[in-house]
Amino acid sequence: MSTNVDYLIDSQDPHHPANLICALCKQFFDLNWCTGTGGGISIKHPQTGHLYVAPSGVQKERMKPQDMFVVDGKNYEYLRIPPGLKPSACTPLFNACYKFKSAGAIVHTHSLNAVTCSLIFGQEFRIKGVEQIKAIPSTRKDPSTGKVLNLNWDDTCVIPIIENRPHEDQLEDPLMGIFEKYPHTCAVIVRRHGIFVWGPTIEKAKVLNEALDYLMELAVKMHQMGIPPDCNVGEESKYVSKH
Amino acid sequence: MSTNVDYLIDSQDPHHPANLICALCKQFFDLNWCTGTGGGISIKHPQTGHLYVAPSGVQKERMKPQDMFVVDGKNYEYLRIPPGLKPSACTPLFNACYKFKSAGAIVHTHSLNAVTCSLIFGQEFRIKGVEQIKAIPSTRKDPSTGKVLNLNWDDTCVIPIIENRPHEDQLEDPLMGIFEKYPHTCAVIVRRHGIFVWGPTIEKAKVLNEALDYLMELAVKMHQMGIPPDCNVGEESKYVSKH
Amino acid sequence: MSTNVDYLIDSQDPHHPANLICALCKQFFDLNWCTGTGGGISIKHPQTGHLYVAPSGVQKERMKPQDMFVVDGKNYEYLRIPPGLKPSACTPLFNACYKFKSAGAIVHTHSLNAVTCSLIFGQEFRIKGVEQIKAIPSTRKDPSTGKVLNLNWDDTCVIPIIENRPHEDQLEDPLMGIFEKYPHTCAVIVRRHGIFVWGPTIEKAKVLNEALDYLMELAVKMHQMGIPPDCNVGEESKYVSKH
Amino acid sequence: MSTNVDYLIDSQDPHHPANLICALCKQFFDLNWCTGTGGGISIKHPQTGHLYVAPSGVQKERMKPQDMFVVDGKNYEYLRIPPGLKPSACTPLFNACYKFKSAGAIVHTHSLNAVTCSLIFGQEFRIKGVEQIKAIPSTRKDPSTGKVLNLNWDDTCVIPIIENRPHEDQLEDPLMGIFEKYPHTCAVIVRRHGIFVWGPTIEKAKVLNEALDYLMELAVKMHQMGIPPDCNVGEESKYVSKH
Repeated sequence: MSTNVDYLIDSQDPHHPANLICALCKQFFDLNWCTGTGGGISIKHPQTGHLYVAPSGVQKERMKPQDMFVVDGKNYEYLRIPPGLKPSACTPLFNACYKFKSAGAIVHTHSLNAVTCSLIFGQEFRIKGVEQIKAIPSTRKDPSTGKVLNLNWDDTCVIPIIENRPHEDQLEDPLMGIFEKYPHTCAVIVRRHGIFVWGPTIEKAKVLNEALDYLMELAVKMHQMGIPPDCNVGEESKYVSKH
Repeated sequence: MSTNVDYLIDSQDPHHPANLICALCKQFFDLNWCTGTGGGISIKHPQTGHLYVAPSGVQKERMKPQDMFVVDGKNYEYLRIPPGLKPSACTPLFNACYKFKSAGAIVHTHSLNAVTCSLIFGQEFRIKGVEQIKAIPSTRKDPSTGKVLNLNWDDTCVIPIIENRPHEDQLEDPLMGIFEKYPHTCAVIVRRHGIFVWGPTIEKAKVLNEALDYLMELAVKMHQMGIPPDCNVGEESKYVSKH
Repeated sequence: MSTNVDYLIDSQDPHHPANLICALCKQFFDLNWCTGTGGGISIKHPQTGHLYVAPSGVQKERMKPQDMFVVDGKNYEYLRIPPGLKPSACTPLFNACYKFKSAGAIVHTHSLNAVTCSLIFGQEFRIKGVEQIKAIPSTRKDPSTGKVLNLNWDDTCVIPIIENRPHEDQLEDPLMGIFEKYPHTCAVIVRRHGIFVWGPTIEKAKVLNEALDYLMELAVKMHQMGIPPDCNVGEESKYVSKH
Repeated sequence: MSTNVDYLIDSQDPHHPANLICALCKQFFDLNWCTGTGGGISIKHPQTGHLYVAPSGVQKERMKPQDMFVVDGKNYEYLRIPPGLKPSACTPLFNACYKFKSAGAIVHTHSLNAVTCSLIFGQEFRIKGVEQIKAIPSTRKDPSTGKVLNLNWDDTCVIPIIENRPHEDQLEDPLMGIFEKYPHTCAVIVRRHGIFVWGPTIEKAKVLNEALDYLMELAVKMHQMGIPPDCNVGEESKYVSKH
């Protein structure tokens, strides 16, 4: 590996993974999703299949394309290591999503909504009967096209929760367990830690993360008002005396 | 229809509907009103009468004028369909507001304040005795000019709530019912979904939406403190021991 | 009055009142202090003594210098009326602050912290023992210089609350009553409406408004936790079992 | 001292302390960490060792490099005094951190999360079992390199709390007491006032401050839900009935 691999991260295109990771991390920083160097994003280059990963322990709102690690999408070997930086401890988890979920991108945040939900839910985050749920994939497929269908608004959105571990790479086994037990899930919450969300493209992963964060924020509000977030539509009036 | 209809969305004027929808959706995105591709805006061109509509399922903060659908304001036929995009599922609702409420613009958000209010209120959102209420139209007209008067600050602001349906176009009938039962309302809350707000111009619709979101945020705070949002002015001390 | 009075609002200096009112209203809009056309700012030109006032009923984040009213600082007659706009209903209140409090600027917001505090406090907003209180003027003067001293951190900050009225100009009499009863106050809260804050310069008025909004936000949090905001330092442990 | 010392604050480099203090104070202002002229930042120039300090009583989001005080890093004498400005009352505290903690920068905020935590905690802020804790230094050293190790995620993060005093320079003695009793701490909370955070560089101090503010925000949420922030991992279910 030599410095001439900088062509891998040198692009004028704002949608190039090396540029987009920086722009989105700044946006996520402003949402308190990756302050204190927490969180991260990885994107697979749609053409080359290379995997771009933000480094560990840096200010996420001040990253530059030159800070990016690049990994070969087939053998998972490093194609580019930015000088003086350490790879994200999430790299094995990102790679598992690429390998087993055909992910095109993974978003990892330390969202306080995710952490708070992990304190008030057991093995699964569950919320039911909210329009925004329609943004989340279901376990159903369109019989004619075979495409995965999204949830209906009055379905229950279920996101599995795993326990945190001392080192992020130790989350790989529990993550694999989730892949097996919840083959259709697009996300996993790590208790007292945050959330991982993946999708076929970075646009999809970003939108899923936004929709889930909105749903988790709402679930916390419902919990505070005494309404179980997964109660049936209309049953909220059992728990709150309506005005 | 051919690509030469792009003149419909090509303007240097920041107030042109094709530009303004993009600018306002970015502003609304930052307020968590249309994250996860939710929500939308439609504006009638004040001169041509054409209806501009944001597409479905796209990142609302990254839209461009080229992404806009344009609908004929008289026969509701498409004048421009952006390649590869689907029209908003809200289009029939927007059209109903244009047709029956003489709307100049409609704002639709997934505001968490609206969703939360829909959980703590029954058939109507009600709040009374707040200065900001003066921004909302009343059922009264100025006897000399015939113009609709706004609410007084100590009036009760009433916004009807309808139940959500599996598909947004199924909300058209309930919306028509609201037009009949609440002929003066400028908005309808959809339970566990969000809010639709209309006005004679986009400036008015935007201001009404801001005022209502402020009032809904306040109503949630009052509910949390145990004060009925529509209690009489001064009666809040029955519900909270004042300092 | 003719259009050639536009020299009154035409300046390249960002600190010129016509420019600064626009910049600050945009900043305040983003803080939800003047959404829905609510709130406003007035600044006395430090050299000419002219009074600049934002118009009524406009989007406060999109104002331009051309939208400003200009009032003679001595006889309170209009020097400039922007075409098609109405003067702020707060103008008499602003003028009273100029006349009787030697104000250099007045900030008026619909802050939800102010409205919420007006629901949990009676005749006075009171908070005690917070560092930020040192930003607020006291009733004491420096014996050697005669300058008004600020509060000590363990003093009680007291801001009077008046009842709202149907029209803003009807608040003038209660405001005059406050000037008499609380000669040292730099602000008055209007119940279920918002707050007015004045100071010798716009910088001072802005800083006072920020400090008071911070204190009101804290008071709401303390109320929610069961701690009287004006309890003595150390007595909070009577009300909350500390970790 | 003459005006020709302006070379000390005149640099095109955005990382120069005189520029960086201004940029970060603007960023912190937007987070409500230094509104109302509260809070401040001091940075030691990595090459010259000079200490840069923001002035007292100014709008923190509108500072310019010309407003900076510069202090000799060895004898603590002023090298540059900006005309018409007063040095920060925190200067003795900043200097103590430089002298006794080998700090490279100190961040001081009036964060409402810090103030709120100071109301619900006694002598120490304590939180346990959150991934973000891994950003905070521990009392352990790497046996091979001698470098201070960070906390494990399931360790308890402990930040000492001192009582506020009438004048900020009176906090110097209690701060020295903390240096002795908690030799490894990177921060101290001042009750009903805010927080001081230091680090070997401004990047480190900023990241530590972000991580601590996140943890304090979470602790307030946990307190509101009835969960002791320093309970053992898994014991939260004793305090909240999980969904």
